[in-house]
Amino acid sequence: MPDESHRIREVRVTPVAFTDLPLLNTVGVHEPFALRAIVELETDSGLTGLGETYGDAGHLDRLRIAAAELTGVDVWHVNEIARRIRVALATDRSTGGHGMSGMVTGSSTADRVLSPFEVACLDIQGKAVGRPVSDLLGGAVRDRVDYSAYLFYKWAGHPGAEDDSWGAALDPAQLVAQAGRMIGEYGFSAIKLKGGVFAPEAEIEAILELRKAFPDHPLRIDPNGAWSVETSIRVGQRLDGVLEYLEDPTTGIEGMAAVAREVPMPLATNMCVVAFDHVEPAVKADAVQVVLSDHHFWGGLDRSRTLAGICDTFGLGLSMHSNSHLGISLAAMTHLAAATPNLTYACDTHWPWKDTADDVIVPGALTFEDGAVAVPTSPGLGVELDHDALARLHEQYLSCGIRERDDTGYYRRFEPDFDPTAPRW
Amino acid sequence: MPDESHRIREVRVTPVAFTDLPLLNTVGVHEPFALRAIVELETDSGLTGLGETYGDAGHLDRLRIAAAELTGVDVWHVNEIARRIRVALATDRSTGGHGMSGMVTGSSTADRVLSPFEVACLDIQGKAVGRPVSDLLGGAVRDRVDYSAYLFYKWAGHPGAEDDSWGAALDPAQLVAQAGRMIGEYGFSAIKLKGGVFAPEAEIEAILELRKAFPDHPLRIDPNGAWSVETSIRVGQRLDGVLEYLEDPTTGIEGMAAVAREVPMPLATNMCVVAFDHVEPAVKADAVQVVLSDHHFWGGLDRSRTLAGICDTFGLGLSMHSNSHLGISLAAMTHLAAATPNLTYACDTHWPWKDTADDVIVPGALTFEDGAVAVPTSPGLGVELDHDALARLHEQYLSCGIRERDDTGYYRRFEPDFDPTAPRW
Ligand SMILES: [Mg+2]
Ligand SMILES: [Mg+2]
Repeated sequence: MPDESHRIREVRVTPVAFTDLPLLNTVGVHEPFALRAIVELETDSGLTGLGETYGDAGHLDRLRIAAAELTGVDVWHVNEIARRIRVALATDRSTGGHGMSGMVTGSSTADRVLSPFEVACLDIQGKAVGRPVSDLLGGAVRDRVDYSAYLFYKWAGHPGAEDDSWGAALDPAQLVAQAGRMIGEYGFSAIKLKGGVFAPEAEIEAILELRKAFPDHPLRIDPNGAWSVETSIRVGQRLDGVLEYLEDPTTGIEGMAAVAREVPMPLATNMCVVAFDHVEPAVKADAVQVVLSDHHFWGGLDRSRTLAGICDTFGLGLSMHSNSHLGISLAAMTHLAAATPNLTYACDTHWPWKDTADDVIVPGALTFEDGAVAVPTSPGLGVELDHDALARLHEQYLSCGIRERDDTGYYRRFEPDFDPTAPRW
Repeated sequence: MPDESHRIREVRVTPVAFTDLPLLNTVGVHEPFALRAIVELETDSGLTGLGETYGDAGHLDRLRIAAAELTGVDVWHVNEIARRIRVALATDRSTGGHGMSGMVTGSSTADRVLSPFEVACLDIQGKAVGRPVSDLLGGAVRDRVDYSAYLFYKWAGHPGAEDDSWGAALDPAQLVAQAGRMIGEYGFSAIKLKGGVFAPEAEIEAILELRKAFPDHPLRIDPNGAWSVETSIRVGQRLDGVLEYLEDPTTGIEGMAAVAREVPMPLATNMCVVAFDHVEPAVKADAVQVVLSDHHFWGGLDRSRTLAGICDTFGLGLSMHSNSHLGISLAAMTHLAAATPNLTYACDTHWPWKDTADDVIVPGALTFEDGAVAVPTSPGLGVELDHDALARLHEQYLSCGIRERDDTGYYRRFEPDFDPTAPRW
């Protein structure tokens, strides 16, 4: 085959908004719309590739700074793309804009910006080669990727609006009902509860009720660092034999290490190890036993494979983190997980919380069966942009008025004295 | 482009021998022939790919065990190839066969066996896509890869044979002359001396003479663990300001860590960190500051990139190790180095010691200029098998009688009491 050029000719970055439900976490509550940015690359060979990332204003600015530097680069030259992005952002000193509402503060800006462009390059590479993205990552070692049932405490509906179909989940019985519906509809075989919302005793009770109702489902709880070291140890010891892993009970490598020494289960994180710079101190402190990877902040799929290799090398478990996302991200997550042999935990996804109609891809490419998504086998990511839907979700972005995710600010509209400062307990 | 299958239809493993010179090291001297194995993969789509690895009998047996399992696997499914090889070798308990004459004992057998098959798969992938292998590794970040002048103490010729053109190098003046010729012919801008042959004082003197003769060339010495911790510290302190790095002065992670605490320069290794299992203890002991990667024992090019990511993450420098090798290996080393941003040291190569006529590839693809090899830009590795040359070097293998590299046994033919047990000093 001749050496055909696939140089980037055009880059489009489109912010979109999609409806979200009032899901509670330790810093507040999800707003009525979640933001994402859709990246489209177009090559001089006429191929297009897709990426998806955070839609916060600061991040959008950086995406556009990066996008302006990429014209003319071949999509196989991701090292060069990464270099240009690092150079372009070298003077950037802004923080935030990671779409994670204050819960990830130290991730690498350049890696966050690189991610959607790298994914879009892989999408194009796959189309050029006639291969699914998983093949570009060493090949799928599983043809379906397991996801977990991601439970949230939630309000019945957004204040002032009608109740949503999921209704309230503010006590153990309502959470068990939520799990029942979600597992019924999707078939998930593992359960994660977003905690840090109520007092630890209430959340322990919820976990124990979930254990009773779903005796065979691995269980996880993630209070996003809401607990002190002492509280974390107390909860961890109380849930001995119940949790598959305990996720970010407290903040910081030092705190996590102190908890890890006293609790029986592995500690997992997507808060204290969110960039390559954090790996060495975490390993040296033995702070965590499972890393929740996330290609959106680890610099794309290839660099997430490097993280996987690091975890394998240092005896760390590997799981996968999720934010509210659309189908392009789900496709990328699925290819990555499929091609990562040591990603043995069911991955997180916010997918069930999204309105099925709210997406930018042509429906049908990704479906859940028995809690798993079949790895797409068509060339590239295996998803196709629905231009009308993109336009609609962009209009929704323009009209929704939200420009930065702000769970805390939204919560304070209803509870002005709310203070999310950790540790809350 | 349609999804074309590139399934492995045939695997050929051909041992070859090529003439080698009497290069001295701490365990003995190179025999008149060096062994390699050439791996050829052929797909149902009619593409062929090349790999090169050690040719020792034990390794050949394992290559053939692996080869028998690979038929039908697509060349993009390297994860599956790796899995099959691990399974096939699971009951293998043999040691050795790494072509390194006792100087690497703990490298991963499965990774050593995987390497040439992975390289051959990448060669085919590149041909299928019309891209150089470097593009499959993220793209070249440099268009030329620097190599170092690899000096050896040596005999004037093999005993009983005529002197070779390089003649003897048994004292500083002769080494300086060797360096002069090698740098004159190849243009190398860094110098490495294989030490551990004479008493440390003599080798210190050699380094100081090289420093005088080549004031601007970074210098390294590698005694392959021949020295005690005390001797290593003494040499390291004596060569403060003279060495770019000190390579494997002593054996073992613990010993290297003890040396590292007392010497001013970085310690490098291709002996105490030769598999992913060694990384964690080495990092925790702060035993080494530079890892010499080698795709032949780290499991191929992709896994060597994982090693590079680990080094980057843990603040370790990255260089590249060499054994006596042919052109397929040089091509693979060059693609890997080109696509590895943090490989900032000039790579080792035994290339100048090889008879130019002794190779299995069609000449001309790889040439040195100013000490560097231009990264091939044609599809795949960019080298082509010369079938007549392969047959000739295979005949040479059959007739030379060597089946395992044995530097010590060869040396003892002339010095029966030779004892290579480390530490020698
Ligand atoms: Mg989390
Ligand atoms: Mg060495």
